[in-house]
Amino acid sequence: MFKLHPNLTTKEYVTDLNLCRVLMENNREFPWIFLVPKRENIHNMADLAFEDRLTLMREIDVCEKAMIRLFKPDQTNVAMIGNVTPQLHVHIICRFQTDPFWPDTIWGRPGEKMTPAETNRRKLLIQQEILK
Amino acid sequence: MFKLHPNLTTKEYVTDLNLCRVLMENNREFPWIFLVPKRENIHNMADLAFEDRLTLMREIDVCEKAMIRLFKPDQTNVAMIGNVTPQLHVHIICRFQTDPFWPDTIWGRPGEKMTPAETNRRKLLIQQEILK
Repeated sequence: MFKLHPNLTTKEYVTDLNLCRVLMENNREFPWIFLVPKRENIHNMADLAFEDRLTLMREIDVCEKAMIRLFKPDQTNVAMIGNVTPQLHVHIICRFQTDPFWPDTIWGRPGEKMTPAETNRRKLLIQQEILK
Repeated sequence: MFKLHPNLTTKEYVTDLNLCRVLMENNREFPWIFLVPKRENIHNMADLAFEDRLTLMREIDVCEKAMIRLFKPDQTNVAMIGNVTPQLHVHIICRFQTDPFWPDTIWGRPGEKMTPAETNRRKLLIQQEILK
């Protein structure tokens, strides 16, 4: 049975797609979501069945384009890292040439949390744009 | 016409697949390759045609599995960042729980170069394993 790793249960729930659960990082500066395939014991992309990998690619594409339309980033960073959380999750992060860490990567960098109202507003925006 | 970005021409050439050119980072500690789709003006994965995205997914899979068989990493990091080099390139990096930066990401970290003989040996190993 699919179960979120404890490190992912603290993320904000956005929506469910056919394959993936979409979660959001609570980070004011960076619009940042995760796609987590709803399958058991998936560590790397290589663990997914072929059909699921194709679906993952489609869902990444839908979500990346939604984030680009919404936040107009200069660059999206799309990554599967997994060094800290050993359950496959795809980061999609909006980056801006004016952001404080540009052009460095931002994993492990501190981030400022949003208020509950801001969090809900951004989650709803992302959910609506993905499901459009 | 497909042309490598100047930041990618300094990488080691490994092989050509149907869609991607495979390059290698000269880094002794980390077995690290790049997949570069041989298409013009591709910045993000979202710029690729649907068929090309499916091929990219297959080629990532083939290369990731080859790297796992060869180097037996604890984790692979698969990422499209593009903040510094605005031509789509997919990083596939082998990470080990014993490596000096684990579990942090290693973009922007210094690396030790291999000798030309070591470089050629690793390139050949990777090429043979990918084309198997």
